[in-house]
Amino acid sequence: MKHEDWMRLALDQAQKAYDCNEIPVGALVVVNQQILSVAFNEKEQKQDPTGHAEILAIRRAAEVMGHWRLTDATLYVTLEPCPMCAGAILQARIKHLIYGATDAKGGAVESVMNVLNRNCWNHKVEVTAGVLEEECSVLLKQYFREKRTKA
Amino acid sequence: MKHEDWMRLALDQAQKAYDCNEIPVGALVVVNQQILSVAFNEKEQKQDPTGHAEILAIRRAAEVMGHWRLTDATLYVTLEPCPMCAGAILQARIKHLIYGATDAKGGAVESVMNVLNRNCWNHKVEVTAGVLEEECSVLLKQYFREKRTKA
Repeated sequence: MKHEDWMRLALDQAQKAYDCNEIPVGALVVVNQQILSVAFNEKEQKQDPTGHAEILAIRRAAEVMGHWRLTDATLYVTLEPCPMCAGAILQARIKHLIYGATDAKGGAVESVMNVLNRNCWNHKVEVTAGVLEEECSVLLKQYFREKRTKA
Repeated sequence: MKHEDWMRLALDQAQKAYDCNEIPVGALVVVNQQILSVAFNEKEQKQDPTGHAEILAIRRAAEVMGHWRLTDATLYVTLEPCPMCAGAILQARIKHLIYGATDAKGGAVESVMNVLNRNCWNHKVEVTAGVLEEECSVLLKQYFREKRTKA
């Protein structure tokens, strides 16, 4: 499968978040072309401030692996990670981060700051941005537009 | 109780991590002079890459409150938070962060980067550093010295 195919599965997860009235972000962890875990943003539903899609996907993948080190893993996520999630990617030693839309106001990979690739870290994360960017972005925009209309 | 008294309780938590052969970091969340949650680093024990003391304390506090917004909360932690934990502090809207030792190699409040107080965030976190710095630091140094001796 290609990056776009995996990202489409992450988008399916984002749609589930949307259907639950959560900010629509979806993620999955893939190792050797196998899905280890999928997740969508459940911050409101779980009332867990750490309940972002990436955190849930990473925690579930570690559970499946039986180990916190996910050194061979690729994380697909529909939105550029925030500082918390970028930090979790470092903690889990994720090999490759692939995301869709950039987050101009909160993204911690390229937009607001760069948490991942700094000389001070031993671990380097390969980053691929902009995969299915348009689709990922459209779903987010639709969510926030509806929120404003309701408010 | 004073900051030093609360930090001593966080140090008790760090000692529990030490006794479990984990990097000795402890944390607690306090609201209106009441403890909401305590936690120590359980990354190895749980094999959870997000199992830092701060993340566990924040998640538990949100569970007790029944809400992800911890706007009146003070987080005490024995070590300067990493990017993941600093990001979680933002996500949880923690009011006041109080920590002991600085982390020259990984600290994301003042040492390696400043995740918390940036113009781009709506939420501002009050920060107090260096509370029982010496005691917090000694425990960490002892842990890493023993690790090196064993290795």
